[in-house]
Amino acid sequence: MIWHQNIIELPPYPRGFNLVTEDILARAPELANCEVGLLHLFIQHTSASLAINENADPDVRGDLERHFNVMVPENAPYYEHTLEGPDDTTSHIKNVIIGPSLTIPITHGKLALGTWQGIYLCEHRNHAGGRKIVATLQGRW
Amino acid sequence: MIWHQNIIELPPYPRGFNLVTEDILARAPELANCEVGLLHLFIQHTSASLAINENADPDVRGDLERHFNVMVPENAPYYEHTLEGPDDTTSHIKNVIIGPSLTIPITHGKLALGTWQGIYLCEHRNHAGGRKIVATLQGRW
Amino acid sequence: MIWHQNIIELPPYPRGFNLVTEDILARAPELANCEVGLLHLFIQHTSASLAINENADPDVRGDLERHFNVMVPENAPYYEHTLEGPDDTTSHIKNVIIGPSLTIPITHGKLALGTWQGIYLCEHRNHAGGRKIVATLQGRW
Repeated sequence: MIWHQNIIELPPYPRGFNLVTEDILARAPELANCEVGLLHLFIQHTSASLAINENADPDVRGDLERHFNVMVPENAPYYEHTLEGPDDTTSHIKNVIIGPSLTIPITHGKLALGTWQGIYLCEHRNHAGGRKIVATLQGRW
Repeated sequence: MIWHQNIIELPPYPRGFNLVTEDILARAPELANCEVGLLHLFIQHTSASLAINENADPDVRGDLERHFNVMVPENAPYYEHTLEGPDDTTSHIKNVIIGPSLTIPITHGKLALGTWQGIYLCEHRNHAGGRKIVATLQGRW
Repeated sequence: MIWHQNIIELPPYPRGFNLVTEDILARAPELANCEVGLLHLFIQHTSASLAINENADPDVRGDLERHFNVMVPENAPYYEHTLEGPDDTTSHIKNVIIGPSLTIPITHGKLALGTWQGIYLCEHRNHAGGRKIVATLQGRW
């Protein structure tokens, strides 16, 4: 039985929806040993999220960023958590909507993603630093 | 220790929030052997989602569809991913909001759902084909 | 290998985003025995959700409640599931957006939360009773 855990440190990414599938895979080499299992990714932050969506057309990522900015607008009159800038409380709200973690099935040593699926780092802050992700791999050889 | 994985192929469902608890259970017979565990369901698509909500009144599913269509409206002027029709980029956005996977506890060979909980296939496209779900069961006998 | 499952019964909480990290930890003493693993929390209800977000400033929780009430407004003209009050169908919608479950990594007997992360019970109803959460712990000693 496999239980493996490590911290993946992603470098700073710009605000928006960033495709990071290759960054994650490069830091999870133990995947190849797993016949059937699950990879759990957990971002240890409250203003950036993890998601899975289209891995091809960058317009999709642009539409996501533009729509989330309309659905969760900055400077709404009812916000009270405003000391750290207009992108602070909206980042927390986006994080609650999208979520901080992913669980992805593993089959024959590879993530069982669909053809068009990729992993996104959704960076909600204007000027964020790097982000830490706890990667927990479990399964059987 | 149990690790079991199979692909559940759901037939095409109409756009909207569809109750599929029985479809899933019919394709996961190994559940009955699991004393304590988790069932992980992962849809391999970026324009349909999985959720859990009310299993009785169909009005709830109608309200969900109507509200998501207001919260993520088609034809917003800032969308750029528009080649495949007005329900394309909105499907991706809805998928990021709702998510592609569920993890459900198992107790004494059954899903430990609450009395009113059922599994939804949230179909965001107008004319989708069937959908593939990777079902990963883990636990102990 | 550890597999442990119990029901955590939370007392009634007021409508809004409530920080419950300590309530959960007090009812999950087996965590301390787990070197590497995952804690899965699953709320058995369709009108309250689980989330992870900022554990310090209560203004964040207030902003979340205020924003969700704008994003999912009560009394929208297209709602049909209205018999149990204006906070009923909106609770279901909020639950689909936020989700009913969390999976949190465990490292050296503790939840591997980031410095600012806490567990939220998101109570969407005006006058809810207590809420049941199925806690499933798995990992290795």
